[in-house]
Amino acid sequence: MSEFDHTSLDDLIHSRLRLAIMAALAGVERADFSALKRQVNATDGNLGMHLRKLEEAGYIQADKQFQDRKPVTRYALTDTGKQAFAAYLDQLAAWLPKTRA
Amino acid sequence: MSEFDHTSLDDLIHSRLRLAIMAALAGVERADFSALKRQVNATDGNLGMHLRKLEEAGYIQADKQFQDRKPVTRYALTDTGKQAFAAYLDQLAAWLPKTRA
Repeated sequence: MSEFDHTSLDDLIHSRLRLAIMAALAGVERADFSALKRQVNATDGNLGMHLRKLEEAGYIQADKQFQDRKPVTRYALTDTGKQAFAAYLDQLAAWLPKTRA
Repeated sequence: MSEFDHTSLDDLIHSRLRLAIMAALAGVERADFSALKRQVNATDGNLGMHLRKLEEAGYIQADKQFQDRKPVTRYALTDTGKQAFAAYLDQLAAWLPKTRA
């Protein structure tokens, strides 16, 4: 009878900033730190912390390279991350149509 | 250029439990505490705290009555709450289609 069970939403994805990161990465092959930072409107420290959290969960992977002798870190969703995001969106969609009655 | 600006999502609504409450109330005229508690799967204390927060924001209103001599508190979205929820859903929808490319 818990139609809107709040615990059914993946907490790892649901934070505003992590949701923004997942949504931004879902639309592209990969994105570097500066592009992501601009897109989700975060500070370096805050973005770094939430990227680490998603990486630890296995939802994204980081890939460090050098461009013009500068290190550039690029991020991409993993298969686990794609599945978790799809499940999150399905859960959200199950709640929200009920609000449009 | 902040396509996925995380600060554009209303933080008052976005917490998992408050989002569940808003979604549950959006589908009905009003709901009492016990029904809400069952629907969103929360403890008394946690639900009470988040209902108070939504009430303080002017998003919901509480209405106390007596049924069989017992006090029953019923909750409903206010007009402000309905508008805020619609704006939240619009913002979310603006992000999410981009993930389905």
